[in-house]
Amino acid sequence: MNDWYTYKQKAWERILRDKEIGYLDPDIFDVLEAFFKRKDTYTQSSCSGRITIVDAEFPWDRKKSSVVYKNHLGIGVEDFIRTISKGKVWNLWLTVQGPIFHVYTRTQEEAWEILRIARSAGFKHSGILTINKKGILVELRTGVKMVHLLKQNYIEEEMVNLVNIANKVLLKGKEKMQKLKIALENSLNSHDSMELGKNSERKSEVQYHLS
Amino acid sequence: MNDWYTYKQKAWERILRDKEIGYLDPDIFDVLEAFFKRKDTYTQSSCSGRITIVDAEFPWDRKKSSVVYKNHLGIGVEDFIRTISKGKVWNLWLTVQGPIFHVYTRTQEEAWEILRIARSAGFKHSGILTINKKGILVELRTGVKMVHLLKQNYIEEEMVNLVNIANKVLLKGKEKMQKLKIALENSLNSHDSMELGKNSERKSEVQYHLS
Repeated sequence: MNDWYTYKQKAWERILRDKEIGYLDPDIFDVLEAFFKRKDTYTQSSCSGRITIVDAEFPWDRKKSSVVYKNHLGIGVEDFIRTISKGKVWNLWLTVQGPIFHVYTRTQEEAWEILRIARSAGFKHSGILTINKKGILVELRTGVKMVHLLKQNYIEEEMVNLVNIANKVLLKGKEKMQKLKIALENSLNSHDSMELGKNSERKSEVQYHLS
Repeated sequence: MNDWYTYKQKAWERILRDKEIGYLDPDIFDVLEAFFKRKDTYTQSSCSGRITIVDAEFPWDRKKSSVVYKNHLGIGVEDFIRTISKGKVWNLWLTVQGPIFHVYTRTQEEAWEILRIARSAGFKHSGILTINKKGILVELRTGVKMVHLLKQNYIEEEMVNLVNIANKVLLKGKEKMQKLKIALENSLNSHDSMELGKNSERKSEVQYHLS
């Protein structure tokens, strides 16, 4: 992986460009920054968590599905009414997704360390997806999730309760994202000291190494 | 990992015992069997997919949460009425979860092969969780998921529609599980021929190996 640091550099430039244009999730930049501060880590496509309303037979469908509402900061009752009043082709699903990070590390040792840090911050559904020229791809996910089947008509009370809980679920995901950012920042010192000492490397070689 | 085959043997005996007692999911045995037919693979805790109704503030809570309904084959309108009529402490969540398999492999090469097979069968949220004395732990998950906030009272039509769609979601997970079983069975021949030839090993050593 000679090009690894080039990939990291390109990924960072892409993030700055997306931030400039406004493509980047409004609340994710400082978390990505915390990842990039780790020498052997960079992030690819990531999401700070969002609320969507999707028109699809099933919420995981990609074909024959359209996103009719999407917001990373929450949903208001007015947004909700406006969106569902437009009708549907299949089913309307109100989906709240927690934060998801796709992280490339240079070494397996760093991948395990990222997983350890992420799990400590509540990213329990995290694992190594693959190894390719860009590095070792680690996906970090929380258990924060809501996938709610919507109907056509709501009484006010029911609608307000649904919107409130959806926003609470989103907030729980954002809290875990902040916890992750802090855990990453705290890890930097210990990570540096790991690099000074040899224990971590020796330990890693007992377990596995990348050839 | 000298004990690996002992762990596999113990895992298989545990499955047979659970099947005997009735602890095993009613529709999972032949899929587990297909995993065990692969020399370097065995399964740990796995789930064929299920519908639950959980009383909790948030559906992912473990503490302060109780499962008030659970069935791996589906839910009927009567079950639904009976369950929600008992009231709640927090919120009632109707959760449909697709199949999940926890697989231990003896080598990294086998872990990547299991991931390749699983993804080909629609288990898209799959990855390597950790490496320990039992082997390389791979989690196989689909995107099949419904996490629906329930209310106190339903009109018949709404309730019937909700129950129907929940059962359809469950069925989609079961279909992916059958696809995985077939993919595993089809892989056995090609796996054997991989063991005869040396190509696969050479390929694997270019990528990585377990030390």
